[in-house]
Amino acid sequence: MPFASSLAKSLEHRRQQLAKHLDHPVLLWSGQATPRNFPANTHPFRPSSHFLYFAGLPLENAVIHMADGHLTLFMDEATPAEALWHGPSPSRTELAHKIGAGKALPLEDLKHFVGDQVATLKVQDNATAVHQEQLLNRSIPIAKQSQDQDLALLQAIVQLRMCHDDYALDEMRRAAGVSVAAHRAGMAATKLGKNLTEAHVRAAMEQVIMAHGMACAYNSIVTVHGEVLHNNHYHYALGENDLVLADVGAETKAGWASDITRTWPAGGKFSSTQRDLYDVVLAAHDACIEAAKPGVEYRELHLLACRTLAAGLVDLGILIGQPDDLVEQDAHALFFPHGVGHLLGLDVHDMEDLGDLAGYASGRSRSDRFGLGFLRLDRPLQTGMAVTIEPGFYQVPGILEDKGNCDRYAHIVNWDRLAQFSDVRGIRIEDDVLMTENGCEVITKDLPTHAKDIEALITN
Amino acid sequence: MPFASSLAKSLEHRRQQLAKHLDHPVLLWSGQATPRNFPANTHPFRPSSHFLYFAGLPLENAVIHMADGHLTLFMDEATPAEALWHGPSPSRTELAHKIGAGKALPLEDLKHFVGDQVATLKVQDNATAVHQEQLLNRSIPIAKQSQDQDLALLQAIVQLRMCHDDYALDEMRRAAGVSVAAHRAGMAATKLGKNLTEAHVRAAMEQVIMAHGMACAYNSIVTVHGEVLHNNHYHYALGENDLVLADVGAETKAGWASDITRTWPAGGKFSSTQRDLYDVVLAAHDACIEAAKPGVEYRELHLLACRTLAAGLVDLGILIGQPDDLVEQDAHALFFPHGVGHLLGLDVHDMEDLGDLAGYASGRSRSDRFGLGFLRLDRPLQTGMAVTIEPGFYQVPGILEDKGNCDRYAHIVNWDRLAQFSDVRGIRIEDDVLMTENGCEVITKDLPTHAKDIEALITN
Repeated sequence: MPFASSLAKSLEHRRQQLAKHLDHPVLLWSGQATPRNFPANTHPFRPSSHFLYFAGLPLENAVIHMADGHLTLFMDEATPAEALWHGPSPSRTELAHKIGAGKALPLEDLKHFVGDQVATLKVQDNATAVHQEQLLNRSIPIAKQSQDQDLALLQAIVQLRMCHDDYALDEMRRAAGVSVAAHRAGMAATKLGKNLTEAHVRAAMEQVIMAHGMACAYNSIVTVHGEVLHNNHYHYALGENDLVLADVGAETKAGWASDITRTWPAGGKFSSTQRDLYDVVLAAHDACIEAAKPGVEYRELHLLACRTLAAGLVDLGILIGQPDDLVEQDAHALFFPHGVGHLLGLDVHDMEDLGDLAGYASGRSRSDRFGLGFLRLDRPLQTGMAVTIEPGFYQVPGILEDKGNCDRYAHIVNWDRLAQFSDVRGIRIEDDVLMTENGCEVITKDLPTHAKDIEALITN
Repeated sequence: MPFASSLAKSLEHRRQQLAKHLDHPVLLWSGQATPRNFPANTHPFRPSSHFLYFAGLPLENAVIHMADGHLTLFMDEATPAEALWHGPSPSRTELAHKIGAGKALPLEDLKHFVGDQVATLKVQDNATAVHQEQLLNRSIPIAKQSQDQDLALLQAIVQLRMCHDDYALDEMRRAAGVSVAAHRAGMAATKLGKNLTEAHVRAAMEQVIMAHGMACAYNSIVTVHGEVLHNNHYHYALGENDLVLADVGAETKAGWASDITRTWPAGGKFSSTQRDLYDVVLAAHDACIEAAKPGVEYRELHLLACRTLAAGLVDLGILIGQPDDLVEQDAHALFFPHGVGHLLGLDVHDMEDLGDLAGYASGRSRSDRFGLGFLRLDRPLQTGMAVTIEPGFYQVPGILEDKGNCDRYAHIVNWDRLAQFSDVRGIRIEDDVLMTENGCEVITKDLPTHAKDIEALITN
């Protein structure tokens, strides 16, 4: 028997931790690929993150059973016909050995491992979810509405996945490294005068991720309309005075994500107004990273970003007042309507399938405030936690032209001064930050943030 | 009122044709994006092909109603909050005008358009399928099991989508053009001595597709293990003596597909054995294209490919016997176990969601024969039909090492001679071919097929 792999050891530790938090046996499904336009033409398969956390490998249509720290893997071997079309694959026993499973059984044998006490979480794909319910002979609501032993499992998983072990951190650093390379490629590909569109820049970035055998952790945003916060179109041409906002991150084969945003001038040089606002966003970014360490409330980082942005906008003459007062009045949210970041792990918004159970500490809930309601994370930071820090500045017509906002902030915004910054639609600077014992480590730090360093990466 | 666009005119013609074939009113849903690892992180949205055929635009969560050639579009306008996050989008009325819909209504109004007579087809995503059933208050089986008016709709759609109009052909030519560019990029990116993997070549190819604002019509195959017919892994390094088999095709935003395969030497030069087998496959490819015209049975093209391959293998001393006899005995299928191609249109295997109802003429069904059972298309060719022509040669261990095959073909295969061709794992040459009145047009013809032209595109 060879030594257990680093993967198998990490998985064993995770199971042991789970056993400490939960008395119930657990079944977790990996799920199946879903059809795109017809059944045989599927989207690329992405296993359930909860399965991946305990099973480590991206196995399709597999199930794990965990009880008292013991692991059993269920999956069917490829039939001879499947092997003919799909090529050779490792046997169930080989896979079980890789992940430290004591037993490897066909799916058929799952029926011997069910019972009233078994806890599970619903997978994303419907075909598998139907199997889950049939096997357990009960309805299984979407994960965030789990009850009874499922809720106990969900709470245990939140505890475990909140803080990352070394194996996970290695994976996340690899994802970050590839994402950094993708952003460098995107900047280098930004050449004007060639009828380039956003699609060209996106393609140059995703090519790097694909060439490294990774996938995108989420649908990329690569746009000259950074003010559209969820923008999955790529058809605009790059204009000489445009800023390109790129929010692109890789995910390893085992599912660990990265999430980076940079904003750069399509023409290679920030205008003075773009540079001024860029530096305000960068100041907020740097202040949060400076302040991030275990014990600090993430909400305080968000408010620090808001105050830093407000102070910068006051200095530029765009906002009028004291930064603290402005934040109290949510004036910052006119230009920064989202939260400063979120948990990062096996999901780019880690464990968002569990609603706010991961993002919000027990007893806390979303604020009604315009400037706080979109915050995805409200917990004290802990060692081993990975979060994004991603302040931004946007001129969103829907916000700035809103009658209520115009009235409410009539004397707080210098609208004439703001009009001088019309060449800035959206700026965001986002890094991935790991909480260490004494502070934090920016795992995406190989990608520059300073304006002049960014300019140097664009080969116009 | 401006003139109707080319799109609107084509759609109107399609509706008129549908009305000739079907007395029932029709509701078709576009579907919704499906979750990847959590609900907000979806796979890129791909509308139902049946919806796209009649609605033309890739609208998410939209429905069309057609009756007597009249079109009504149902979709909800973006809420102010959605507009804030997703940016401005055309109004329902603007979209309706683009596609020639007489009315544009909110989804809420769908309830006034239901009735026992309404025909529909089930979409691929479950969330929408549930809505379909709730609205129509009946169960809707998967499309290929449709009954009653749904079956009548399905049969009418097969009639219409079988032969393409000019608008569709323009789209397919655009997809083909981008796919051709992608294959050229893949060949140019095949540089040895740099630890390149299949993933690098794939990335270079898909980058071109993405940069043109298109998507992949299917999961790319880019592999040095061409003998694995359904291969979606990309981790192997390119070896000096390997052949790279790349099956990669683009799809336009409106959903029209292309599907091209080329096989090239990673080292830039085919070995003499590779070249010999390549030329056999090319002879089969060329013979089919030469013979393709309206009225010819597609099955005969398949058998022509089989005979041409068999004759080539006899000439090389790999098979022993008369080509016709060898095909009669399915000896060709030892090396060419799939069909020579399939329908091409809005799906890469067009209308495969309808089972064999599109691929097989009425009264025909799949053969039990080893050498014919995988044929996806068995109909006489018609003007306007688009098909792929994709013969191949593979050394699949699961076939060649099968005891039954070894016994059955013991004296038909010269196994010693075959062993001399061990540097060929898989070769496929695939083009997209449109039936014209007098013959056919290879819409992917800008991509060379001859070995020496292929070699010239590789910049080693």
